[in-house]
Amino acid sequence: MNMTDVLMKKRNGAVLTDKEITDVINQYTAGSIPDYQMSAFLMTIYFNEMNVAERTTLTKAMMESGDVLDLSDIPGIKVDKHSTGGVGDKTSLPLAAMVAALDIKVPMISGRGLGHTGGTLDKLEAIPGLKVDLSEDAFKQQIRDVGTAIISATGEIAPADKKIYALRDVTCTVDSISLISSSIMSKKLATGNDALVLDVKTGSGAFMKNTEDARALAESMMEIGEAAGVKMRAVISDMNQPLGYEIGNALEIIETVETLKGNGPDDLVELCLALGAPMVVMAQKAPNEAIARKMLMQTLSDGSALTKFTEMIVAQGGDPAFIQDYLKLPTAPYTIPYVAKTAGKLGTIDADALGILVMQLGGGRATKDDTLDYGVGVTMHKKIGDAISVGEPILTVHANQPELDLSSLDEHIQIQEHAQAPTLIHATL
Amino acid sequence: MNMTDVLMKKRNGAVLTDKEITDVINQYTAGSIPDYQMSAFLMTIYFNEMNVAERTTLTKAMMESGDVLDLSDIPGIKVDKHSTGGVGDKTSLPLAAMVAALDIKVPMISGRGLGHTGGTLDKLEAIPGLKVDLSEDAFKQQIRDVGTAIISATGEIAPADKKIYALRDVTCTVDSISLISSSIMSKKLATGNDALVLDVKTGSGAFMKNTEDARALAESMMEIGEAAGVKMRAVISDMNQPLGYEIGNALEIIETVETLKGNGPDDLVELCLALGAPMVVMAQKAPNEAIARKMLMQTLSDGSALTKFTEMIVAQGGDPAFIQDYLKLPTAPYTIPYVAKTAGKLGTIDADALGILVMQLGGGRATKDDTLDYGVGVTMHKKIGDAISVGEPILTVHANQPELDLSSLDEHIQIQEHAQAPTLIHATL
Repeated sequence: MNMTDVLMKKRNGAVLTDKEITDVINQYTAGSIPDYQMSAFLMTIYFNEMNVAERTTLTKAMMESGDVLDLSDIPGIKVDKHSTGGVGDKTSLPLAAMVAALDIKVPMISGRGLGHTGGTLDKLEAIPGLKVDLSEDAFKQQIRDVGTAIISATGEIAPADKKIYALRDVTCTVDSISLISSSIMSKKLATGNDALVLDVKTGSGAFMKNTEDARALAESMMEIGEAAGVKMRAVISDMNQPLGYEIGNALEIIETVETLKGNGPDDLVELCLALGAPMVVMAQKAPNEAIARKMLMQTLSDGSALTKFTEMIVAQGGDPAFIQDYLKLPTAPYTIPYVAKTAGKLGTIDADALGILVMQLGGGRATKDDTLDYGVGVTMHKKIGDAISVGEPILTVHANQPELDLSSLDEHIQIQEHAQAPTLIHATL
Repeated sequence: MNMTDVLMKKRNGAVLTDKEITDVINQYTAGSIPDYQMSAFLMTIYFNEMNVAERTTLTKAMMESGDVLDLSDIPGIKVDKHSTGGVGDKTSLPLAAMVAALDIKVPMISGRGLGHTGGTLDKLEAIPGLKVDLSEDAFKQQIRDVGTAIISATGEIAPADKKIYALRDVTCTVDSISLISSSIMSKKLATGNDALVLDVKTGSGAFMKNTEDARALAESMMEIGEAAGVKMRAVISDMNQPLGYEIGNALEIIETVETLKGNGPDDLVELCLALGAPMVVMAQKAPNEAIARKMLMQTLSDGSALTKFTEMIVAQGGDPAFIQDYLKLPTAPYTIPYVAKTAGKLGTIDADALGILVMQLGGGRATKDDTLDYGVGVTMHKKIGDAISVGEPILTVHANQPELDLSSLDEHIQIQEHAQAPTLIHATL
């Protein structure tokens, strides 16, 4: 394999062979292809894209650069969910409990947050005593015993993707459907699951700003997964405002428990059903999604999902006392309301801006090594389309200081005469 | 200037500002922009190209990274010629003498060859005693006294282009009209001439394989030159076979002298006229090209061009005795004919293959540090369209060894039933 030949071939729009792609990934990871050739190669992919076969090979090569979990010794169909990330998105937590409550195996390898979208592991670590760094054996045993576990990677997942992503980040080659879908799938396929449902976010607070791009990304990931023998489904969901009402690690745990107690916000509950139903069908526990939805709703009303969540917490070393007493979770000492200056309806609320605010409060990481303050965050009181009076609080900030200048939010929150709640589910694939 | 912002802007097809382009060039040359960002940037230019304003700014920024000659203290209009390079192309040598014989200033900064296309300086250095490394003062004095000089760069010409070219070479970003034209013009504009005629080669032995691409390159270079205030003309000429009959440094000097004596091959003489006529007109020594052509032909028939060539050689320290006695030039001890195996007409003759053969004989450089054997080369006896009998020599190789396996030429030289001489001048711009 000669790197300039491969570069020329892709630049000229030709289809690369499996060997060419695999050699590029292996040699770049090994350091024998320099960054300047790799960045030029990534830019050719940005412009000429890759077909499904090329994307699948790229995904496989990046996956095989690291550790790959083998869950085949756990009986049953293992199902997982992946979200492209959004502000206030705690869906994995109630969803895992709801699906696992139906006797389905839900092994989840999750990540920590970087930038303004919080990670599922960070939220879990707000729970006193809970550990997410389980060994592979402990993880598998918990899946057998409890049905679900949400942990950090047990080995080194797709180091090739990590190295390539760092280069993409500084060479304007992040937003390529071929590269995004291969990057995500190289990590998801490494977890060894049998079925995967994707939650691809779209809207002002999402990486994909419109439904067409979100659909293209979802389709690409589904094609890669299916080519690798994994059952795939996808939901395109709205991220024009935060999901639910709570943003911040401990606050999102509380909203999760409330959801499992049957008091969840409409959008979060609906998303759990939209994502959970195909998981239940793919796990062959329901003949169709209508029945699957009813079964999932039942787990909320009969308390079985909350029980499953509690079992998971205990199995991972957490103290479940907070489920009855939220004050056992970290809290912020001060609450500062942000009130409406005009009356009308909430028109826009920039999810990114709220995510950045929570990060600045200490609830998220600007750099990998930042430590988190689990108690801080934002509680929203209004969602898009809700009526608002002058002086009424739109949101409350949970902070470590008594006063905070929130005027920077003014440009990110608009009150209008007319406004309508956005559609939550834009498409199911 | 933030490099990722500039990268994003060009990647998305926007037009860069003068400051953005200049900053990128200056910072890359200074080492503060890494290769991996520059190679990604070059690839965005490959895909999205640059408009004339951007190309002009890029050219100027690369030119200003190095030394720029100021010839304004030499009276008269200074005209130059640039060729994109071809096998057997010794045109600069007779052309400079012919034009200078008409009392026109022709200062030429030329290069050495790398790869199979020989450099004009290498050919000149086949002349005993001749020096091409003149000081700037000596160069200017020779232009005043003799009218022409062909020398190597007196300072560091466009180091930014040199660094960028090295990166383009290994990242498949060489063949971009924007980048090629800016690269050439950054070096040509640094020589401080008032007018420039371009010889853009097209055909199997040229970088530009078809006339459309050659025309696009010529037009781009003309636009850049004109934007910088230089009078520009261009000729698209054929390179489907070597120019003239001689390939090799001393052999091309002999063909040059024969041309100046009035015995030149038709194609070489015609190209000198086609390129020389616009030079004479731009120098305001003839009202139109028809008259200019007659004046140029006169310099051949009256011996004034040969006299001018002799003056130039002597001024640069060369011994002009070879002009009467070619044996005073380096020669190869052995000649090996390559004969026709079938009868017919010469159909194709791969100029690149002959160039590579001469390089392998020692007449060209594979790497920058190779020393040259000036005597070796190839004398062609036939050109495309010429009738050929079985056993008749198509070419003669001048080598340092008595025997040579020339069978590798078989695939590069084809004899056909019908063949026609290609058009030499495809277009004049």
